[in-house]
Amino acid sequence: MSKTIAVVGATGAVGSIVLQLLAERNVQFDHLKLLASARSAGKRIKFKSQELTVELLEPGAFENVDIVIGSTPDDVALQFVPWAVQAGAIVVDESGAHRMRPDVPLVIPEVNPDAIDDHQGLIASPNCSTTQLAVALKPLHDAARVRRVIVSTYQATSGAGVAGERDLQLGSEAALKQQPYQYTTFVHPIAFNLIPQIGSSKYEGYTSEEMKMVYETQKILGDDTIQICPTCVRVPVTNCHSESIVVETEKPLTASEARELFERAAGITVIDDLANSKYPMPLNCDKLDDVFIGRIRKDLSSKNGIAFWCVSDNLRKGAATNAVQIAELLISRKLTKC
Amino acid sequence: MSKTIAVVGATGAVGSIVLQLLAERNVQFDHLKLLASARSAGKRIKFKSQELTVELLEPGAFENVDIVIGSTPDDVALQFVPWAVQAGAIVVDESGAHRMRPDVPLVIPEVNPDAIDDHQGLIASPNCSTTQLAVALKPLHDAARVRRVIVSTYQATSGAGVAGERDLQLGSEAALKQQPYQYTTFVHPIAFNLIPQIGSSKYEGYTSEEMKMVYETQKILGDDTIQICPTCVRVPVTNCHSESIVVETEKPLTASEARELFERAAGITVIDDLANSKYPMPLNCDKLDDVFIGRIRKDLSSKNGIAFWCVSDNLRKGAATNAVQIAELLISRKLTKC
Repeated sequence: MSKTIAVVGATGAVGSIVLQLLAERNVQFDHLKLLASARSAGKRIKFKSQELTVELLEPGAFENVDIVIGSTPDDVALQFVPWAVQAGAIVVDESGAHRMRPDVPLVIPEVNPDAIDDHQGLIASPNCSTTQLAVALKPLHDAARVRRVIVSTYQATSGAGVAGERDLQLGSEAALKQQPYQYTTFVHPIAFNLIPQIGSSKYEGYTSEEMKMVYETQKILGDDTIQICPTCVRVPVTNCHSESIVVETEKPLTASEARELFERAAGITVIDDLANSKYPMPLNCDKLDDVFIGRIRKDLSSKNGIAFWCVSDNLRKGAATNAVQIAELLISRKLTKC
Repeated sequence: MSKTIAVVGATGAVGSIVLQLLAERNVQFDHLKLLASARSAGKRIKFKSQELTVELLEPGAFENVDIVIGSTPDDVALQFVPWAVQAGAIVVDESGAHRMRPDVPLVIPEVNPDAIDDHQGLIASPNCSTTQLAVALKPLHDAARVRRVIVSTYQATSGAGVAGERDLQLGSEAALKQQPYQYTTFVHPIAFNLIPQIGSSKYEGYTSEEMKMVYETQKILGDDTIQICPTCVRVPVTNCHSESIVVETEKPLTASEARELFERAAGITVIDDLANSKYPMPLNCDKLDDVFIGRIRKDLSSKNGIAFWCVSDNLRKGAATNAVQIAELLISRKLTKC
C-alpha cells in the first residue's frame, strides 16, 4: 500500500522547512499533500522534481492520508486535528494546543521515543524553547537525576514566525536611520532591545512560554518532581534560541563528566573551548539540526550543579526537525496503518 | 579653600557622562580639570558655560587636585593612580585595576557607603554588571540574608566603549545589506548574534567578567559566603545591561515582600506589571540613573527563592553615576582635605 504524508501550514516559516527536511532526509512515503488556509491555497510549491499545488485545509482533506505534520497556530490545530484523526490519519502536531493532554504523547525522538507507542492518533511536538532544554537535560537526568533547573532564554524573533523576523529586520533598518517603525508582532520594539515577556501572563508572575518550559519538560522527562525556574526573553536575533542553564542533579557530576555525557548523547554537538573563544552562538548554529552545548562548567553556587550554554535552531530542532523525526519514528516502528 | 575635581578619560564614553552628571547634579567644586592621553589632549570641551581644554595625563597633572574621577582602561589606571595619590588627591577609579585590593574600598553609595571612610587615597567603583546586581541584592540581603545567586546577563555593546557601540551599528548596517564587516571590538559578529563570553577565560570555565561578578559582589556586600553562579553574555543592544536573577535567601520572602523591599530601596525603581506588558527594558532605562527591577516572582524551583529581571544603564549607574555619587559622598562626608 502507498503512504501519504500531508503537511498542514506548508507555506509558513516552519512548514517550508518541513518540506525541505522531507526531501533532504529522504523520508519514505509515496504521496505528499500540502494543505493551508484559504489565503495560501492554490499556491504552487516545488518539492524535489515535482511542483505541488497547496490544497485547502478543510474537513475532507485528510482522506487516505497516513501521517499529518501540522505547523500551525494553536487555533488552527484545534480545528483541523479532529478532522485528521477522525479520517484515520496520525497527526504530528507542532502547535501548543494538545501538548499537555494526558492522552497525547509529547515526543522528542532522542529523549522519549517510546512514548510514541501509546499514541491515539495524535502526537505532539514540544515548544521550541522546551525541546533544546529537554535534549540537553536528558543525558544528565539519565546519569545523575536532574532535580532542579534554572534557565534564562535568549529567544530569536523567528519564534514569532515570518512576521517576527520581518519585524526585527525592518525595525532595525528604521532604528539605524532613526525613523519610526510600527511593529506587527511584538508589543515593544525588538530592534536593539530586549523584551522579557514571551506569551501572556499565566501563573504567579510567569508567562505562558515559561510555564510551557516547566510542564512540557516534566512531561517529556516523565518526572514531575523536577523543579524548573524559567525566564524567557526575546532578543534581537533572527534565528536560533539560546539558553543559559544551571542544573542541580541528585548525584554530583564534574564538568568533564557532564561534557562526556553531552558528547555521547544523541542529537547534541559540544562546542566548548573558551580559551579559544569557541562556543555555540546563533550565527554558527543556524540551519543545523542538532542542539549545541558549550561553556560547560561547575556551578559555583551549589555542590551538585552544572552550568552550561545551549543554542539550537528553533525552526529546525525546535519545530520542523523534531516533527519530521517523529514521522520517521512512526514509519520505522510501523505505527501507521500502511 | 577651593576644591578641584579632575576627570581622567574625559573624552571617553563614560568620561563624557561624568562631565554631564557633574553639571546636572550640581556637584560642589570650584575648579574642573580634564585629563586624557596625548591622543585627546588639546581638545576643547564645553562644561556649563565654560569651554575647557583637555590637558595631558602626566605625573605632574594632579597638583592641587582634591578628587580625581578616572574612567580609563585598567592599564591607564595602573599608571596614573599612583601619581594622583602621591600628589595628595583622592581617586575614584572606575577601572578594574584596583577593585580587589584589600586596602581599596569598593563602593556603591546606596549599598556600602561607610566603606568609604577607610579610604587611603583610592576608592574603586565596581564593574557595570556587578553594580546593578549588588544594588538589587542589597535590600534582600538586609531583610533575609542572600545565600545564593544565579545570574545570566544580557550585556550591551556600550560596555565595550564607543568602539563597541560603533561595531554594533556598522555591523548591523552591513548585515542588513548582506555585506561583510570587520569587527574591531568583538571576537565574533555581534549584529543579530549573541556572544557568551565577556573578558578572558579566567577560572574553571568562567570568564574574567563572570569572576568580577562573584568577587566584587561578595566584597561590596561584605559577605564572602554568598555563592554566585554568573553567565555573562553580550547581546546586540546598544546600551543598558539586563540581568535575569534568581536569589535564594536564608529567610523566605514572598514575591510581594521582595517587591516592597525593592520599592523602598535607594536607587531602585520597580516597573512590574506583566499583565500590561510593563517591565524594564534597555530602551526604557536608557540615560537614567536608577537600577530598574521587574518580573518579580517566587522561584518555582526552590523554597526560599525569588526571581526577577534587572536593567540599568551601564554607562550611568554601572560607571559614571556611581563614580560621581562616590565623589559627592566624599564631599558630603568632608573626606577631602578641603
